[in-house]
Amino acid sequence: MKLKVDRTTLLKALAHIQSVAEKRNTIPILANVLLKAEGNTLVLTATDTEIMVVETIDALVQEEGATTVSAAILYDIVRKLRDGVDIELEQPGDDNPLHLRSGRFATSINTLDASNFSVMADKELSYRFKVSSKVLQGLIEHTRFAISTEETRYYLNGIYLHVSEGHMGKMLRAVATDGHRLARIETEVPEGAEEIPGIIIPRKTVYELYKLLDEAPETIQVALSDNLIEFVIGHVTLKSKLIDGTFPEYERVIPQNNDRILRVGKEDFSSSVARVAAISQERSCPVKLSLKKGLLTLIATSQEQGTAEEQLDEEYISYEAEEMEIGFQARYLNDITDQVEKDVEFSFSDSSSPALIKDIHNPSVLYVLMPMRV
Amino acid sequence: MKLKVDRTTLLKALAHIQSVAEKRNTIPILANVLLKAEGNTLVLTATDTEIMVVETIDALVQEEGATTVSAAILYDIVRKLRDGVDIELEQPGDDNPLHLRSGRFATSINTLDASNFSVMADKELSYRFKVSSKVLQGLIEHTRFAISTEETRYYLNGIYLHVSEGHMGKMLRAVATDGHRLARIETEVPEGAEEIPGIIIPRKTVYELYKLLDEAPETIQVALSDNLIEFVIGHVTLKSKLIDGTFPEYERVIPQNNDRILRVGKEDFSSSVARVAAISQERSCPVKLSLKKGLLTLIATSQEQGTAEEQLDEEYISYEAEEMEIGFQARYLNDITDQVEKDVEFSFSDSSSPALIKDIHNPSVLYVLMPMRV
Repeated sequence: MKLKVDRTTLLKALAHIQSVAEKRNTIPILANVLLKAEGNTLVLTATDTEIMVVETIDALVQEEGATTVSAAILYDIVRKLRDGVDIELEQPGDDNPLHLRSGRFATSINTLDASNFSVMADKELSYRFKVSSKVLQGLIEHTRFAISTEETRYYLNGIYLHVSEGHMGKMLRAVATDGHRLARIETEVPEGAEEIPGIIIPRKTVYELYKLLDEAPETIQVALSDNLIEFVIGHVTLKSKLIDGTFPEYERVIPQNNDRILRVGKEDFSSSVARVAAISQERSCPVKLSLKKGLLTLIATSQEQGTAEEQLDEEYISYEAEEMEIGFQARYLNDITDQVEKDVEFSFSDSSSPALIKDIHNPSVLYVLMPMRV
Repeated sequence: MKLKVDRTTLLKALAHIQSVAEKRNTIPILANVLLKAEGNTLVLTATDTEIMVVETIDALVQEEGATTVSAAILYDIVRKLRDGVDIELEQPGDDNPLHLRSGRFATSINTLDASNFSVMADKELSYRFKVSSKVLQGLIEHTRFAISTEETRYYLNGIYLHVSEGHMGKMLRAVATDGHRLARIETEVPEGAEEIPGIIIPRKTVYELYKLLDEAPETIQVALSDNLIEFVIGHVTLKSKLIDGTFPEYERVIPQNNDRILRVGKEDFSSSVARVAAISQERSCPVKLSLKKGLLTLIATSQEQGTAEEQLDEEYISYEAEEMEIGFQARYLNDITDQVEKDVEFSFSDSSSPALIKDIHNPSVLYVLMPMRV
């Protein structure tokens, strides 16, 4: 293998690649990136056996070939190389180290044989559709905070993507929940996605995909089957296994008849929550919302440190229903209001029933939050 | 106690105070800030029994008094309060919580009695002098990286400040070493400091002092005795115990006759070191400097990952002495070159003797670095 490649191009590709490569050192070759010189391209591949990223970049190939080296080391070296100087990669024979030269810098990096690098097998993917990268970003942004990290309920460790019949007809929905809160966003069903099965995209895939969308072209190609999904984002292909489990029937936890409506500006509300919660150093600090006509009082109590409260009156909120009190974890409240553009609408039933939370300016999203006793 | 205070003023004071308060919860009151309303001022005090910071700010005092509350909680709350709104503090009686009100926000913070807060005793301080805050910043900046963190050699856990006879007459010197590297900077002896004993200022004091110097007035007042030092920085007083130990006779480790001189630009050298060291993921990666007339080759080797080298020729370096090789830890090299303004001068004796490192544009500093076998 012998080739020349532009430093910035290689660096960008390695930035995508290196976070997918396995960091734990159980199977050494999984920490490596597969480098394959063919035609006028260098193809870089990394996988942790659950996800695989393949990126193709332009290269001046003098001799085709393939090898693998540590993704972290190669990334770190290329990152520190002088910009504007081309990089030369050469492996004289299959068992030899990979030589990298750039200006006055030269390195020999130990390799593992490319034939031992197992790429994820190509499988028949039954469904193919296109989706705008902006829409895909939105689906992820509004839901990923609610993905569960609890490994016992593995089927909650991702975003549930499925087509559902809403009152507006068929919609593509993304849903995440950890049992305490739920986030749902919907969008028009892309052409070709009408019949897709409900799938659960794992957390790591969601985060890697989101990073790739940052500089993505306008349209992403998606292909999927029951247990595999593939995204083609320009020169990059992200392939991932899907979580093999059944997502709970989340629809029944979305309250239908909550009629006590509180409207409040997102900034006013979340800064108030942060202030009263500051009395407690615990991450799970409960905040009580005490509601009267035209008045919201936020109250937090820490047995050790004291109490704090703040009042938001008609200048800040609207509330016309009966008096009530209801408590939530401060950070759960703020995780949700962080997603809201400007104004947020809470609807409650009573102090022990889940609240429905909406973004007044974005009807495509909704959130459900379980109260806690305060 | 009852008073009104400007939010920004209180926030700035608490930012200084809260990092001195003890974080470990062994003696609860050490985590607290002492608030004392007297005259037209609020005096804030925090201590961990080794260091104490006292800051005096303007306040509209309606009723004098004193109490203590958690420094972390009070800081966090004040930080989150709306700017431009005054803060009202009130403690109705000695055993009651402290009430804080600001606009629509109110909190009651649990207190511990001010009489249980033990401030560091006032002691006779025999030496008093003034020093420019810029000079003090320089003394700290060029030496603190070399302070040892090894607790067994506690007498190295600080900066050694003393007056010494140099070839330019008496100089005030700051020295730090961890046994692997040494940093020394000297400045004119301030009037009144000619006879001070050699003292060791503890690491935490050095870092707290450095933070306070950020917005300091031009001149700092220093007072000290054998075991205590006090800095008056505008409205803030920092008092600290000194390390009770004997700093080693460091002068004899400073090489006097190193005559193999390497000169190199700081940026060229440190980026080269970073590049070759990238081959190893270990923090203690050794880098070999191979020297010939007009040529420096930097070489790093990782048994696991391979080798890397970079050449810097006459365009970048000057070296006219005999061929030699010498190895250093990459991060120790870069810790030192980070202190250098522009061009660095190494002088060597042989591969197993310490190197002397100077800043070509700043003759007041010098560094010594032990080589390692490579």
